[in-house]
Amino acid sequence: MNFFSLLDLIGTFVFAISGTIAAGEKRLDLFGAAFIGFVTAIGGGTLRDMMIGISPVSWTSSMAYLYVIILAVIITFFLKEQIFRFRRTIFLFDTIGIGVFTIIGVEKALANGINTPVAIIMGILTAVAGGVIRDTLNNEVPQIFKKEIYATACFAGAVVYILLKRFGIQTEANQVATILIIIGIRVISVKQQLGLPRMDFRAQ
Amino acid sequence: MNFFSLLDLIGTFVFAISGTIAAGEKRLDLFGAAFIGFVTAIGGGTLRDMMIGISPVSWTSSMAYLYVIILAVIITFFLKEQIFRFRRTIFLFDTIGIGVFTIIGVEKALANGINTPVAIIMGILTAVAGGVIRDTLNNEVPQIFKKEIYATACFAGAVVYILLKRFGIQTEANQVATILIIIGIRVISVKQQLGLPRMDFRAQ
Amino acid sequence: MNFFSLLDLIGTFVFAISGTIAAGEKRLDLFGAAFIGFVTAIGGGTLRDMMIGISPVSWTSSMAYLYVIILAVIITFFLKEQIFRFRRTIFLFDTIGIGVFTIIGVEKALANGINTPVAIIMGILTAVAGGVIRDTLNNEVPQIFKKEIYATACFAGAVVYILLKRFGIQTEANQVATILIIIGIRVISVKQQLGLPRMDFRAQ
Repeated sequence: MNFFSLLDLIGTFVFAISGTIAAGEKRLDLFGAAFIGFVTAIGGGTLRDMMIGISPVSWTSSMAYLYVIILAVIITFFLKEQIFRFRRTIFLFDTIGIGVFTIIGVEKALANGINTPVAIIMGILTAVAGGVIRDTLNNEVPQIFKKEIYATACFAGAVVYILLKRFGIQTEANQVATILIIIGIRVISVKQQLGLPRMDFRAQ
Repeated sequence: MNFFSLLDLIGTFVFAISGTIAAGEKRLDLFGAAFIGFVTAIGGGTLRDMMIGISPVSWTSSMAYLYVIILAVIITFFLKEQIFRFRRTIFLFDTIGIGVFTIIGVEKALANGINTPVAIIMGILTAVAGGVIRDTLNNEVPQIFKKEIYATACFAGAVVYILLKRFGIQTEANQVATILIIIGIRVISVKQQLGLPRMDFRAQ
Repeated sequence: MNFFSLLDLIGTFVFAISGTIAAGEKRLDLFGAAFIGFVTAIGGGTLRDMMIGISPVSWTSSMAYLYVIILAVIITFFLKEQIFRFRRTIFLFDTIGIGVFTIIGVEKALANGINTPVAIIMGILTAVAGGVIRDTLNNEVPQIFKKEIYATACFAGAVVYILLKRFGIQTEANQVATILIIIGIRVISVKQQLGLPRMDFRAQ
């Protein structure tokens, strides 16, 4: 297993934690937590695979994802206090996770003959759809539709990744650069409380 | 590009507007609006393609859909007042859109070996699923489950389309007839405030 | 048609009833009821098929499912009182339904080269995803995330089924044993008001 695959598993782990925490906020039971933890972690990649025609979907062929998710759900379920203590670390790895997921989404799309603009969308979708499904199952409007520059960071990362790839930059260097850009944009936007402009179409 | 393809793009455009407006009612940010606009426009066709086995899903192979959706989101986001002024026109093109989407859904299903009753369902699904996903992401019970004869118009249109096709009517004439029937049913039901019978299973 | 296929159709019928009842609790119209009844009945199998690559998805190739679902929706819509009178019978057949759906999910996954742990997940998903989609469309947190040992019964059933299969038990005997175990676990958990431990991550 190379370093990028390790980051992928860490991203999966942290996404499953975020799903389990969200389930806990609604006082769900262990199954609800496991279900939401699971779909948060694999939802984006699953949707991408179903849309571009990779079947069976990627996570089903490796046991590693499954075990990492189960581990994340159990740890979060039983070690609530510790999870909260590590929330800065979790935030960091969550951001690394969206970087890794964006890159994987772009690469899988391109490898399956998808054109570049749609591949960028598939990268973003891989990173954000799990969280969208998590919040929807939890009966909330998805958080990323309302705050911080989360998807925008994925978009910027996907564009940079494809540009550097075209310039012939070596894959590992490109991965690191892309992830650093996504981390940079997200950390700055959270610290500065930057967000995208919001709409207001409420009935007047 | 023939006239029917043009109507398809206009339908896509108007569906994306309706998604963006819905996002605005929840005060979402630009990304949330783009996401919901996007899935409203391509959600029905995507679900249909994944269910009948067209991969990659149709919208990914043509850039036209993507650009039309982005245009619709940007216009709606920045020209709120104008959008409201054109709401009758939007309603008309939305209705043309569900007609076109119904026909495309029926045709793609039949072309992929799906039997007639299921092809009718695929036609309806292509037309309505985007709106269902839009409202679900927006944390609302889908509007079309509660008011006006929206899906019923698609159902009637799909049945008429298949019958006329069997009678050997020329495709373009059939498309026009089907869309006119869908427009007719919807406009009359909205004007007369007709709706389907509603259930009431609330705890007594 | 063998006895197992009959149970599958009865399960489909009862799932569609549960979807229609849920729609009635939100005062939806006939189309809303039909839509939710439909996705409750076929949602789990559809998701499973899309994830493991069966296309078109299974229910589209047999008219029986479609007719059974339409029948269930119409009966529930017009015979509300009678439906409530039979609620114990419905509960029993709902439980038989999740047993049948779990077995079908496991078998289809294994037949498509999915490994055993993921096949167990596909069995659970086939049984529970329809209900999850039903509640999500109805703008509720899925019931099975909060009460009784529903998914756990499917999990136990899937494990038992695979074990007995490995021990070379004849398929029909294995099906009966698996369904009885799922019924047993669910009935006992409902009677004893057993549930899984719940989380509580609400902000303090």
